[in-house]
Amino acid sequence: MAKIQNSKHTLFLGGSVLLNLLFINLFMHGGWKQSNWTKTAAEEAEAVASISCSGHGRAFLDGLLGVDGKPVCECNSCFKGPDCSDPIPNCEVDADSGDPMFLEPFWLKHAARSSLVVPGWHRMSYEFGDGSLISEELENHIRRLHSVVGNANTDGRYIIFGAGATQLLNAAVHALSSNDDGDDTSSSPSRVVASIPYYPVYREQTEFFQSEDYRFDGDTMSRKNKMDYLSNNYIELVTSPNNPDGQLKKAVLQGESVKTIHDLAYNWPHFTAIPAPADEDLLIFTVSKLTGHAGSRFGWAIVKDEAVYQRMLTYINLSVYGVPRETQLRVLKLLKVVLEGEGKEMFEFGFKTMANRWRKLSKIFSASRRFSVQDLEHQYCSFSKKIRGPSPAFAWVKCEREEDKDCFQVLKSGANIIGRQGSLFGGESNYVRLSLVKSQYEFNLLLERIEALVQQEPHNKIIQGENMGELHP
Amino acid sequence: MAKIQNSKHTLFLGGSVLLNLLFINLFMHGGWKQSNWTKTAAEEAEAVASISCSGHGRAFLDGLLGVDGKPVCECNSCFKGPDCSDPIPNCEVDADSGDPMFLEPFWLKHAARSSLVVPGWHRMSYEFGDGSLISEELENHIRRLHSVVGNANTDGRYIIFGAGATQLLNAAVHALSSNDDGDDTSSSPSRVVASIPYYPVYREQTEFFQSEDYRFDGDTMSRKNKMDYLSNNYIELVTSPNNPDGQLKKAVLQGESVKTIHDLAYNWPHFTAIPAPADEDLLIFTVSKLTGHAGSRFGWAIVKDEAVYQRMLTYINLSVYGVPRETQLRVLKLLKVVLEGEGKEMFEFGFKTMANRWRKLSKIFSASRRFSVQDLEHQYCSFSKKIRGPSPAFAWVKCEREEDKDCFQVLKSGANIIGRQGSLFGGESNYVRLSLVKSQYEFNLLLERIEALVQQEPHNKIIQGENMGELHP
Repeated sequence: MAKIQNSKHTLFLGGSVLLNLLFINLFMHGGWKQSNWTKTAAEEAEAVASISCSGHGRAFLDGLLGVDGKPVCECNSCFKGPDCSDPIPNCEVDADSGDPMFLEPFWLKHAARSSLVVPGWHRMSYEFGDGSLISEELENHIRRLHSVVGNANTDGRYIIFGAGATQLLNAAVHALSSNDDGDDTSSSPSRVVASIPYYPVYREQTEFFQSEDYRFDGDTMSRKNKMDYLSNNYIELVTSPNNPDGQLKKAVLQGESVKTIHDLAYNWPHFTAIPAPADEDLLIFTVSKLTGHAGSRFGWAIVKDEAVYQRMLTYINLSVYGVPRETQLRVLKLLKVVLEGEGKEMFEFGFKTMANRWRKLSKIFSASRRFSVQDLEHQYCSFSKKIRGPSPAFAWVKCEREEDKDCFQVLKSGANIIGRQGSLFGGESNYVRLSLVKSQYEFNLLLERIEALVQQEPHNKIIQGENMGELHP
Repeated sequence: MAKIQNSKHTLFLGGSVLLNLLFINLFMHGGWKQSNWTKTAAEEAEAVASISCSGHGRAFLDGLLGVDGKPVCECNSCFKGPDCSDPIPNCEVDADSGDPMFLEPFWLKHAARSSLVVPGWHRMSYEFGDGSLISEELENHIRRLHSVVGNANTDGRYIIFGAGATQLLNAAVHALSSNDDGDDTSSSPSRVVASIPYYPVYREQTEFFQSEDYRFDGDTMSRKNKMDYLSNNYIELVTSPNNPDGQLKKAVLQGESVKTIHDLAYNWPHFTAIPAPADEDLLIFTVSKLTGHAGSRFGWAIVKDEAVYQRMLTYINLSVYGVPRETQLRVLKLLKVVLEGEGKEMFEFGFKTMANRWRKLSKIFSASRRFSVQDLEHQYCSFSKKIRGPSPAFAWVKCEREEDKDCFQVLKSGANIIGRQGSLFGGESNYVRLSLVKSQYEFNLLLERIEALVQQEPHNKIIQGENMGELHP
């Protein structure tokens, strides 16, 4: 036995000396100086960032390479050419996607604080040291953020990470559905409902996965009226503020057989007054609409019940085995920037941008008899501690004329604007959703096109041209 | 109309000037010099990397913070203390997970080439410029890698990214299952089979998602014997080299109603001789077993049929909306390092490490009458262009004694080794899988414990102690 112990120590020593030598080789002791190992990456990133794309595009580190061996400019949709300096006449305005590029200028401004070095050996393991798939430090920052903003109560709740709200929605539906409760395998599938107009992914996702445990069952209100939610298992999706119309919402169905999922993706000061911390059973958030990093595919759920949390964990384990470690590291870095000064700077930038956009757009629509948009109230915001105006992520546009049944087509053929069809939201096709969260340039173009359309109305409510000055400060 | 055009240009110009000013502010023209925006991140990364954890642990950028405000050391399982210098006597040896940490020393050695700066504004959008969710540059590098290694034919095939092989397996099963074919909604669910011993996730995942479209149906061989694969839809999972036993495998079932998924996670020179490029309909790979970055959750599928590819794309869109952009950027960086010198350096390191481990372990087992391991042949490798010995990722250990029915328990109680139970692989409980891909220190400890166990056998085949010198070079 003594011999075995000895040889074990010999082996340990061997490994230890090797690793120490590696470290001494790589990292000199003492205070920081630029050693070789970060320099190459820093050079590369700065070189790519310095490529000029005329302000109408951007070069990325992983872009396709041009003949000069450098990444090419990727132009915004209305420009072309090697440096994106050639405008494309009458280009299509894409107001379809909720792509939150309005926040990009904030991160460009804070380049030094928000950029990150990922060492080649960073967290290669399947799991964190504690066996989990979640960075505890990131979880702590998320809790702190909710406490600072006051939009969700995290005390005594479980937090789980997923690939954006997209994945967490399905994980939650799965975890709350009938057959996952244990013995009760004979019960009928849970019915998933949402109030019209609802986010199209709810239906698309629930139908796509063809689960034995749940099925999409349409509009919440029609179920409420039928009262059959008293005898069947229901899962109600509540979106607040709502996508597409920005209204604050509460659950409609109530009863022992009803479970709720609160999709709070837009419940940040950019898009809404914060009334009070959400305190419901299952809340879903995403970094896409918080910092604008939609490409990072990072979201989290706040869960009250331990059994539901465990089922969601199993879902994440068996579908993806956790969120990439470089993504968790990056989100942590971004949240640190957000939390400096208690979030004031980013949320102020976000709110001002969105409120300004809404003010301009709704002013144009207010002059129209052909189009209308949703009515949003001024409300008290517990984060900013004042009454504030609306700043929604989307305009929910209605075509008022009898002949404009297909509102999507009206905007497309009349102004080359691509919105998202109202029918996808379970609503009527005389509605269309317009995204207001894209880049300033894309929003400005949208505004111009809408204005031109309203100006063409023979009986609009303003004297033509009167508002132009105010629209272009 | 002229007026509208003008005001559009004014707006464009406004956005353009603003962005240009930002850029001029951030990035000075001309050759590279360390400007402010990468310096903070570089300093931070180098400071954390210089934290000493005695060679028995590591500090990470997103680690929990100690009282000094720096990330704490995260110790390997057999050490504790603030700098991981205190050994834990007779600690548990975890040989359960296929955690590919054997490659970490390679990335530590190549710190400068493999580290990466992620700018705060890197690819915030939901989509790439071409509307896809996939970096074209990364896809190109993956194709080049397969061409260099010669382990898969990518010509004219589609490539899709997912959150590791884990997610792509389910995406593939979903895409190939009966009801997804279109009209044929009345057909019975597809039957998913695999040859025993099989990777446990196949069963766990297929059962967990409770789809109407497919169900797990156990062992391939029993289906082949019953011949009912001629009348039902079957999806056969083929793993080559096989997890757990490292054997090269071919599909067993054949016929019009049979579809196959080839899980080639381990089909790299680290673990097997490469016989020829795989050319089957649907191949799955993962970066976890290629570069060792299991925490990055990145895999890809190579798909022959366009309709299957499109269904897998829909699956990825509706479940996660693509792989995080920082992950794609990091994998690209890693593959660039791998491809320098046509992959020779990493694969040589990987093969030598794994072959050496197998040589030592199988030698010890060859002296035992109580335990045996799988028999693996020398084979010609088209990558290294020579006949080479085995270098499997796992030992598939059999307890030979009648009384050692629970082989997992034998290793646990006899040597404090945690393997993975044979029964999880659809096999008998007198088998256990031992992971050989973890860190050198963990492997050495495993080797010692196994050796001690074999030495305890009253009638083992060697004179005790004779082999010791060779085991500890």
